[in-house]
Amino acid sequence: MADLANRLEIEDLKENLRAVQDLLERHHLVEASGEPDYDGERTGAELEAHPRHLAELRGTIERLHPADIAFILESLPFDERLVVWDLVKADRDGEILLEVSDAVRESLIASMDSKELVAAAETLEADELADLAPDLPDDVIQDVIRSLPIEEREQLRAAMSYAEESVGALMDFDMVTVREDVTLEAVTRYLRRLDELPGHTDQLFVVDRHQKLKGALPLAKLIVSDLELEVGKVMVPELITFNAEDKADDAAQAFERYDLVSAPVVDQDGRLIARITVDAVVDYIRESSAEQVLAEAGLSEEEDIFAPVWDSFRNRWAWLAVNLVTAFIASRVIGTFEGSIEKLVALAALMPIVAGIGGNSGNQTTTMIVRALALGQLQTHYWRKLLNKELGVALLNGLVWGGLLGILSWALYDSKALGAVMTLAMTLNLVLAAFMGVAIPYVRQRFGRDPAVGSSVLITACTDSGGFFIFLGLATLFLL
Amino acid sequence: MADLANRLEIEDLKENLRAVQDLLERHHLVEASGEPDYDGERTGAELEAHPRHLAELRGTIERLHPADIAFILESLPFDERLVVWDLVKADRDGEILLEVSDAVRESLIASMDSKELVAAAETLEADELADLAPDLPDDVIQDVIRSLPIEEREQLRAAMSYAEESVGALMDFDMVTVREDVTLEAVTRYLRRLDELPGHTDQLFVVDRHQKLKGALPLAKLIVSDLELEVGKVMVPELITFNAEDKADDAAQAFERYDLVSAPVVDQDGRLIARITVDAVVDYIRESSAEQVLAEAGLSEEEDIFAPVWDSFRNRWAWLAVNLVTAFIASRVIGTFEGSIEKLVALAALMPIVAGIGGNSGNQTTTMIVRALALGQLQTHYWRKLLNKELGVALLNGLVWGGLLGILSWALYDSKALGAVMTLAMTLNLVLAAFMGVAIPYVRQRFGRDPAVGSSVLITACTDSGGFFIFLGLATLFLL
Repeated sequence: MADLANRLEIEDLKENLRAVQDLLERHHLVEASGEPDYDGERTGAELEAHPRHLAELRGTIERLHPADIAFILESLPFDERLVVWDLVKADRDGEILLEVSDAVRESLIASMDSKELVAAAETLEADELADLAPDLPDDVIQDVIRSLPIEEREQLRAAMSYAEESVGALMDFDMVTVREDVTLEAVTRYLRRLDELPGHTDQLFVVDRHQKLKGALPLAKLIVSDLELEVGKVMVPELITFNAEDKADDAAQAFERYDLVSAPVVDQDGRLIARITVDAVVDYIRESSAEQVLAEAGLSEEEDIFAPVWDSFRNRWAWLAVNLVTAFIASRVIGTFEGSIEKLVALAALMPIVAGIGGNSGNQTTTMIVRALALGQLQTHYWRKLLNKELGVALLNGLVWGGLLGILSWALYDSKALGAVMTLAMTLNLVLAAFMGVAIPYVRQRFGRDPAVGSSVLITACTDSGGFFIFLGLATLFLL
Repeated sequence: MADLANRLEIEDLKENLRAVQDLLERHHLVEASGEPDYDGERTGAELEAHPRHLAELRGTIERLHPADIAFILESLPFDERLVVWDLVKADRDGEILLEVSDAVRESLIASMDSKELVAAAETLEADELADLAPDLPDDVIQDVIRSLPIEEREQLRAAMSYAEESVGALMDFDMVTVREDVTLEAVTRYLRRLDELPGHTDQLFVVDRHQKLKGALPLAKLIVSDLELEVGKVMVPELITFNAEDKADDAAQAFERYDLVSAPVVDQDGRLIARITVDAVVDYIRESSAEQVLAEAGLSEEEDIFAPVWDSFRNRWAWLAVNLVTAFIASRVIGTFEGSIEKLVALAALMPIVAGIGGNSGNQTTTMIVRALALGQLQTHYWRKLLNKELGVALLNGLVWGGLLGILSWALYDSKALGAVMTLAMTLNLVLAAFMGVAIPYVRQRFGRDPAVGSSVLITACTDSGGFFIFLGLATLFLL
């Protein structure tokens, strides 16, 4: 069917990666070596040996969307990645660097010299440059800034001055503005002269001659309205606007809640300075949710899956070290009860259960609260209500699971008293977990810290040391 | 400044919640009771006592966007929530039920009778109804279906037949279609008759008379092009299309990668049946990333933070039970070495360190791999390369942290042999963690399961039991 040939299906997109991999392998463009080789050095001779095959691969890559090339680069090990990167046409370098993940971007930039980097950067717009700038060497940035027209230079300075998690970091300058007192007819003529509208233009912004935002003219309205009418009659006067200093999280929530495609960014005097579009918001949502998942597992930042061992080690060591310290403290708590364990060795076998369940339960509480905090759903005067509820859940869990474990311990070690201590210790540790699970995010929030970061480590530290202390302490009191 | 009064700032949105809460509290619309009251029952008498205050609150609520009301409902405890819900005008019930989280939706639906539910459902479109249907009682759904015109009834049946994680569950039927052989002039006239375009219409879909998709006509192109031209000359023939059975994840990735606002959904014969828009995709991305975070903490589903204790217990018990089983197994591993611990009680204090660090490290590996798998970045023939790398990181971690802990143990217990066993055990458990951290997602992926679900529990189970076994086993071999 001829008409089907024009359509791209989602499966075709996955095919691209396989095609590139096949070409790489079939022609041995990367030396297959017995042991992994992560040093990123290529042997030039090898590449030159297959000029025809490289041309075939280049042809395949050229047909692809920059985002697809970025995806392929992220999916390839070091050596293969650099072969493909070398084949990308220089004028697409900039776009692709924007699309790849931070970790992979580093590896690509490291393979380029200053001249190539300047050339790549010069193909980008001011807001895109601002995203790339933190990863570029200083001399490259200076070169690029010097080559920019004054207006864009100002835009770049502005965009670079905002914090990473702010609206300023997401905004772009591609907005189309019109005046209130012209007719739709005139607007249409003006747009035709532009030839093409910037991506994600779902509305034009209406400003006065001081650039003050007066409203927005949705394209859909422009199309269905009488062309004789003036913009002021047709425009939407009530708009959701952002300041460049607003938190990107708030903007993301507003885009989600009100189903926005684009929104204006204004300064303190209500002057339009930029816009923010849904594609930037989607990227932001994806990245920040990925970061949360990675951070909870103790990865400092997104990791290139094919990163050298040493880079991976650096990305992971901080949290492992924290974990080591908390584990060591828990170990010293056990150490102080060594006398008790010597007398009743069953304690050693049972204590990790008390600690483990407490940690798991505390993490459930904290995760739920951190999420509610992130959504702004938790108001100060409901904390007590929440704490009461969590303590209720903890007591119920303690009775159910603690009771079950108490009976198991009794059966295993034939000691009613040991079973009772087990039940009591589990209940108390679950109550401690609930209390800390609420208190830790509460305190962090009160002191203006991100309640998510490290919550899991802190909770586990409390429930481990606390669990060992409660269980061994009770056992020492009642069993020995 | 008069022109600023028209703009909504993000801070105003947060004010709304506070305003409603203040009204609720100032007028004691909900009885302040010493102990929390979660049973959701309201005393009608109390509400009727303050008709003027309720009117004030109703006025505030009526001015708000449905999504804002949904947010307020989610942020209020049970009793307050139902007071506000009662004040919402019946014709907005449907929209708001769509916006609230699943957990809160349940609590609202439980407070409504069949007649109210049917009335609420009838205000919705077919695709929206399909989202709500799983939460509605059967008789309500039957009533609603009967009241629908045939076309919408078919759409509802179609929308309800797709799996929750598919494109079919996200799509809507609000697309505007045009023919290839008409002029842009004619298209413009046609659109004017529509008066208003459906939300997120950034492009019209071009179909032939068999509904076969031929291309798309972006509004931006329609506006800037010569009106004499035919649609076929101006349209974009190459489009990314989806099938209703495609995975929602794939669609989300495509929207993110190609910065789409809307995309057509076609059947096997290439006929246009629906469209998917970026707002549905944004909601999906948010929800699925939230689910991942919640699932990793062992919460089965999103939890209403003010849920009754019993509901919370049910939401959390499954993972706690799994955790209990794995903890019990680890405990039995320790149990088999009780003889060794009796002889050298220091083992009891040190063993949790070995297990804990292994778990943490294994989770880092798995999290990174699960993410790469979700992004489709991990190809089958790179698994071995990845495993080698992870084993390398594990060895490095073992030498560094195991070495450190070995020295600490040596110092604490004055036993060089104990220090050596500690270092060796930590290294081996980290290697085990790396191996399982790669193997578990690999195997789950091979058998077509979601590699994310439960990975953390499985890893921790391996590294706990494995860590205790390795450490106590080595100690028994070399120290006793």
